[in-house]
Amino acid sequence: MIVLPDSALDALLAQDVPYGDLTTDSLGLAGRPATMRFAARAAMVLAGTEEAVRLIEKAGGRLTQVLPSGTAVEAGAVFLESDGPADALHRAWKVAQTLTEYASGIATRARRIVDAVPGVTVACTRKNFPGAKDLSVKAVMAGGAVMHRMGLSETLLVFPEHRAFLSGPPEAWIAELRRKAPEKKIVVEAGSVEEAIALAEAGADVIQLEKLPPEAARAVIEATRHLTPAPVVAPAGGVTEANAAAYAAAGCRLLVTSAPFFGQPADVKVTLQPA
Amino acid sequence: MIVLPDSALDALLAQDVPYGDLTTDSLGLAGRPATMRFAARAAMVLAGTEEAVRLIEKAGGRLTQVLPSGTAVEAGAVFLESDGPADALHRAWKVAQTLTEYASGIATRARRIVDAVPGVTVACTRKNFPGAKDLSVKAVMAGGAVMHRMGLSETLLVFPEHRAFLSGPPEAWIAELRRKAPEKKIVVEAGSVEEAIALAEAGADVIQLEKLPPEAARAVIEATRHLTPAPVVAPAGGVTEANAAAYAAAGCRLLVTSAPFFGQPADVKVTLQPA
Amino acid sequence: MIVLPDSALDALLAQDVPYGDLTTDSLGLAGRPATMRFAARAAMVLAGTEEAVRLIEKAGGRLTQVLPSGTAVEAGAVFLESDGPADALHRAWKVAQTLTEYASGIATRARRIVDAVPGVTVACTRKNFPGAKDLSVKAVMAGGAVMHRMGLSETLLVFPEHRAFLSGPPEAWIAELRRKAPEKKIVVEAGSVEEAIALAEAGADVIQLEKLPPEAARAVIEATRHLTPAPVVAPAGGVTEANAAAYAAAGCRLLVTSAPFFGQPADVKVTLQPA
Amino acid sequence: MIVLPDSALDALLAQDVPYGDLTTDSLGLAGRPATMRFAARAAMVLAGTEEAVRLIEKAGGRLTQVLPSGTAVEAGAVFLESDGPADALHRAWKVAQTLTEYASGIATRARRIVDAVPGVTVACTRKNFPGAKDLSVKAVMAGGAVMHRMGLSETLLVFPEHRAFLSGPPEAWIAELRRKAPEKKIVVEAGSVEEAIALAEAGADVIQLEKLPPEAARAVIEATRHLTPAPVVAPAGGVTEANAAAYAAAGCRLLVTSAPFFGQPADVKVTLQPA
Amino acid sequence: MIVLPDSALDALLAQDVPYGDLTTDSLGLAGRPATMRFAARAAMVLAGTEEAVRLIEKAGGRLTQVLPSGTAVEAGAVFLESDGPADALHRAWKVAQTLTEYASGIATRARRIVDAVPGVTVACTRKNFPGAKDLSVKAVMAGGAVMHRMGLSETLLVFPEHRAFLSGPPEAWIAELRRKAPEKKIVVEAGSVEEAIALAEAGADVIQLEKLPPEAARAVIEATRHLTPAPVVAPAGGVTEANAAAYAAAGCRLLVTSAPFFGQPADVKVTLQPA
Amino acid sequence: MIVLPDSALDALLAQDVPYGDLTTDSLGLAGRPATMRFAARAAMVLAGTEEAVRLIEKAGGRLTQVLPSGTAVEAGAVFLESDGPADALHRAWKVAQTLTEYASGIATRARRIVDAVPGVTVACTRKNFPGAKDLSVKAVMAGGAVMHRMGLSETLLVFPEHRAFLSGPPEAWIAELRRKAPEKKIVVEAGSVEEAIALAEAGADVIQLEKLPPEAARAVIEATRHLTPAPVVAPAGGVTEANAAAYAAAGCRLLVTSAPFFGQPADVKVTLQPA
Repeated sequence: MIVLPDSALDALLAQDVPYGDLTTDSLGLAGRPATMRFAARAAMVLAGTEEAVRLIEKAGGRLTQVLPSGTAVEAGAVFLESDGPADALHRAWKVAQTLTEYASGIATRARRIVDAVPGVTVACTRKNFPGAKDLSVKAVMAGGAVMHRMGLSETLLVFPEHRAFLSGPPEAWIAELRRKAPEKKIVVEAGSVEEAIALAEAGADVIQLEKLPPEAARAVIEATRHLTPAPVVAPAGGVTEANAAAYAAAGCRLLVTSAPFFGQPADVKVTLQPA
Repeated sequence: MIVLPDSALDALLAQDVPYGDLTTDSLGLAGRPATMRFAARAAMVLAGTEEAVRLIEKAGGRLTQVLPSGTAVEAGAVFLESDGPADALHRAWKVAQTLTEYASGIATRARRIVDAVPGVTVACTRKNFPGAKDLSVKAVMAGGAVMHRMGLSETLLVFPEHRAFLSGPPEAWIAELRRKAPEKKIVVEAGSVEEAIALAEAGADVIQLEKLPPEAARAVIEATRHLTPAPVVAPAGGVTEANAAAYAAAGCRLLVTSAPFFGQPADVKVTLQPA
Repeated sequence: MIVLPDSALDALLAQDVPYGDLTTDSLGLAGRPATMRFAARAAMVLAGTEEAVRLIEKAGGRLTQVLPSGTAVEAGAVFLESDGPADALHRAWKVAQTLTEYASGIATRARRIVDAVPGVTVACTRKNFPGAKDLSVKAVMAGGAVMHRMGLSETLLVFPEHRAFLSGPPEAWIAELRRKAPEKKIVVEAGSVEEAIALAEAGADVIQLEKLPPEAARAVIEATRHLTPAPVVAPAGGVTEANAAAYAAAGCRLLVTSAPFFGQPADVKVTLQPA
Repeated sequence: MIVLPDSALDALLAQDVPYGDLTTDSLGLAGRPATMRFAARAAMVLAGTEEAVRLIEKAGGRLTQVLPSGTAVEAGAVFLESDGPADALHRAWKVAQTLTEYASGIATRARRIVDAVPGVTVACTRKNFPGAKDLSVKAVMAGGAVMHRMGLSETLLVFPEHRAFLSGPPEAWIAELRRKAPEKKIVVEAGSVEEAIALAEAGADVIQLEKLPPEAARAVIEATRHLTPAPVVAPAGGVTEANAAAYAAAGCRLLVTSAPFFGQPADVKVTLQPA
Repeated sequence: MIVLPDSALDALLAQDVPYGDLTTDSLGLAGRPATMRFAARAAMVLAGTEEAVRLIEKAGGRLTQVLPSGTAVEAGAVFLESDGPADALHRAWKVAQTLTEYASGIATRARRIVDAVPGVTVACTRKNFPGAKDLSVKAVMAGGAVMHRMGLSETLLVFPEHRAFLSGPPEAWIAELRRKAPEKKIVVEAGSVEEAIALAEAGADVIQLEKLPPEAARAVIEATRHLTPAPVVAPAGGVTEANAAAYAAAGCRLLVTSAPFFGQPADVKVTLQPA
Repeated sequence: MIVLPDSALDALLAQDVPYGDLTTDSLGLAGRPATMRFAARAAMVLAGTEEAVRLIEKAGGRLTQVLPSGTAVEAGAVFLESDGPADALHRAWKVAQTLTEYASGIATRARRIVDAVPGVTVACTRKNFPGAKDLSVKAVMAGGAVMHRMGLSETLLVFPEHRAFLSGPPEAWIAELRRKAPEKKIVVEAGSVEEAIALAEAGADVIQLEKLPPEAARAVIEATRHLTPAPVVAPAGGVTEANAAAYAAAGCRLLVTSAPFFGQPADVKVTLQPA
């Protein structure tokens, strides 16, 4: 599934190479038959390869073969091959490479957390690079994670910044939320074990623990296990590849993380040469 | 200077919060007077604060005060204050925060390299997150760096991937480039000291060293110092805050780097509370 | 809150009146001082007045006063007054009027259902006119209803068209959905009382009854009341102002309806005259 | 002819299903072979089927067969068949269905009026849903009607709201309009038989009767028959399927109506199942 | 009236100066107080000054004074004054200047034809530069001319290229057009005096003479004067400032011309200096 | 290479013919087989033919054959042939014709200058029609010229309007520019021979002579020949086909001109007839 519509792909090319590669054209290379191949420099989970193909085609190249988003490849694996005129391939080269690298970087980091906690759901926040939501969400899904929430208009997540405006016991506003939005789960962020337990007892469906350690998660889970239904207890804030397993071991069935968005792009080696 | 046009800012809000914050609205908080304050959790160079202000205003909030992009602030410094109805501020909160964090992250990393090499020009590549070029370029400039090249259609940079199609000595194609594009400098990427020297002697204006260490840069600079004009020798590929000073000490007056684009967003603490 | 960004409002004007009102201009009326007033021809709930104001201002007029979206007004009530040059007001007239009429029509119909079932949540489907989602959602909210689901990517709603691909008991795939999307409620559409009860017993959170009468809804509610938690039982398909109360009386706390989208626009009388 | 450009169709999909159908994907149905068939639940005139096909293709499905816009079909008629992966068809389902339903609803209502008055031209106003002009115009044409005016910048239509600014006899401003816009017909709205006759005698080409009954139209036609050329007398405001024939019997050769835009979408039954 | 929406003006700036004027910024001139003044180097009719102002404001400058589109100015007249930071004014300078020059060039040429034929209507074709229709139409109107037709979907103009598909006498298809589009005038292009007379006698409302000289126009006018109503006879193809008066003297009350679109932009002198 | 993305081509069609050619459709010609052929009325250099083809295809026609942008053709040469339904070809006709005419006009004028000065580089300014940059740049390149500068953010060009803010000798700010932008050539505009020589001696890479005659250019070249490297001396302002050779004879290796943008579109004869 291509998540970047044609207008977005056209915009990427227009920003980078509106009138062709001046170097290629000035050197008189336009029209020379060429091939371009993308390979992984390290093990990675691919994302954005469908968009890369479309970019290459828009620039005037032809696809030979490609692996889909979500594929885990080893170091050295060739995952995209194309041919066409040298000027077409030069035009698409960096845009397609950079797109694949960033998206695969996110997918790879997401997959590492997913693989670290078999059977547990890993949900990524929407703390993606502003302006790059579509590609980022696609990369998250390619990594095997899900999205925590797509935006503010369709989910309920009560932050302390909301509660600062509220008086009365949580039971009251939780009931009101349940009445107003009966098709939504009520997610509430808690900053301590005590707060988490109180909110769960007040009826919240999901307790999001803000920067609490695994042992705190375990304490909340144990203290709320008797509730029917028991709340989903989800650590958030600081969940990484390093501590995901600890949270899973503590009994968490859902982890909320921004970590896959941060870090180096995956390293893609491009070979562009005469055909 | 705001680099994101209104349509881009509208799109950011529309993607995240098309119909308001369901939580705020369901809790009946709309219209409650509130304030929102952004502060730096660690020392950072600000970028994107002008866009953040515009987002807040578009969502229905009012600016109280703000520091401009490019300002270096200490940990704890408040750099943006606003007030308005709680629903307006909740709507803008995360979009404005995330934008400021990513942009300031880039600006901060760029500034660190700039500060490490006084008098030397730091040029960032266009390896920014696809779809986020405008904000990324603004952040680079806020950091005090410049852009290496904006795109392929206006600058000359001869890669080995171009040269693979060429026969004959570099003098020939360099002369041809000079004739066809007399207003452009001829930049050529070299993969070894020998290649760099040969290309400089053939007339290239700028030699971009691909992943060569500082001592290699020094060797090229010394071997080409006698040329008139002497070429600009610019390391690229792997230039970071850690090795920038070594390249400067080797005599480089221009460093080309992608490093500021990678890494954590700056950490911005947002306080949103009743007025 | 304005949900139509400036680009959408500019597009509305550009489609209808790209170069001014030829009649006004050919008659030499440009610049003549004028006033324009919008009044309700019948009792109605306003929606889109904020957008109407913005259209008038973009065309060159000035707002004098306006009532916000969501306000219920009586027949004859003036809800928007503006003045400015005759050509400016003629330019904005029909675009602003039509927008207000369609949006208020939806809001008014939504409000009637809401008022018919106090304490019950009325959720509108996304069966709005294609291309007019933003205004339609705003009108739904102005009417006091909520949105059933914003789209397919963020909510779970299992149709028979999904189940046709599944084998095994509902318990299996409901458990799988719960694991994969622990922050979402599992909504399932049922076509009969028996199916509804079976799905509820299998663990669905919300049972959407497809074109079943109130007595069927009552039967499902009674048969599933013992479950913990009891499912939300929501009629959908054919819910209108006429039968909403009957569903509420049957015990439904959530009604899903497309009815507000269909029918006449509200009737707005515009008075445009010399100042 | 497809009137919705790719960017509009991409936007429809992006608003409804930006990242795929979460339900289909969470159930593990992606890639399962499926078919999707659209059939008319009642007799209808099709519109928008070309756009529906394009939506299905964009979502990843394949067209098998389709009937073009403008085709009148009986209840039960299958008018669009497609196949493809279940996730692709689920993605396109509701967007394509809703588009076809709304457009065909307009076309069907337009056709009913057209069929009621053989030999008479039925012109629809531009009182379409704001933001949906292209599809609405296409539907009008598919129904066999024409557009009254596309917008304000290209036609002359003198409303009382224009005349309120004018002094002097109608002969004066009609002559001025004729001089300034010699390629346009001069259309004038009249609110009474007397006014209509006076305006026709003053030289108007088309007299638009605002909410006057058929007998009034007949009176105007008879009183102006001697003019050379005789004016076109067109009822407007309240012209519907119910009274169209009466206006035609009164001698009107042109009817202006908004009625096709209002009312229920056509009812399309979609069958989506395993292939 | 501003015909270029904000998104178009933003696009003009983004294409020319996405990240500021590198020269100004590199010279350290940002923030220095400056003034910018536009003056006519020769007598001209202004067009696009409203857009120029908006561009300057968007770039960060402030308007001091401006003359509106449509104003005829003498050589040397200052028509726009602004001040602001040097970097803001440098950013807007060329974009605003070029826009004013092209638009005023069209307006000036249109006005010259208009002034050459008092009392006669001058209609410009839509043969404007592709992609620049809005500004071109505005300039035409600022010059005092009107638009011949805005597009193909709203007017009737029968070319020989249409008639090549028709059989039967013109009376037949003219009657059919009149029935189908009773609110439109029927415009027909004729290539000879004989053809023109025949088409007028067959009932065409407007005869457009394709590249026929004034004496031919006179012949057609005289031969068709007896018709009721007499057709509008409009020369088209090759009508210029040089021959407009001759056509008017021949009796033409409408001239159709593309000439204003072609030729040099008006010459605007910009003074940008320290305040 | 197509420089106008699909969205731009869709917009051209939507502006001109949003709902088809009313004349063709009203005459009942839709679907009649037809052919359309574009031929040069005079010798010309083609540009925009790729975009013309795409427009025809989007309108529903089929390409038979076409010559690429950059091809020089003689008077009478057919360069584009297509067939398809009459309504499709009528829809695309004028849009495709006008686009080809304007673009080929620029290309033809550019080529004439290029051919007048063999071995010399002809650079066009960005003084294109506002809103038509992409097509204009493509036409320039099709003519064999290059672009002087794409915009302000990526090149250095010091105007007198910059220097008015500077104090100190040119050596100072030239050194500063060189340090800040080591990958850019420093271009400076000079208004006299003396100024030009002084700026060259101060280190400018390119001296742009503002409206100086060929003999002045020769004087500057001779006076600066001894510098290493000698500056590029480029006349600008008033360079045309008429004087280009004189500048070349004076020793200029680069000419900067806006002339190709001004003047008549190329004259393309379109034959549209029954197949």
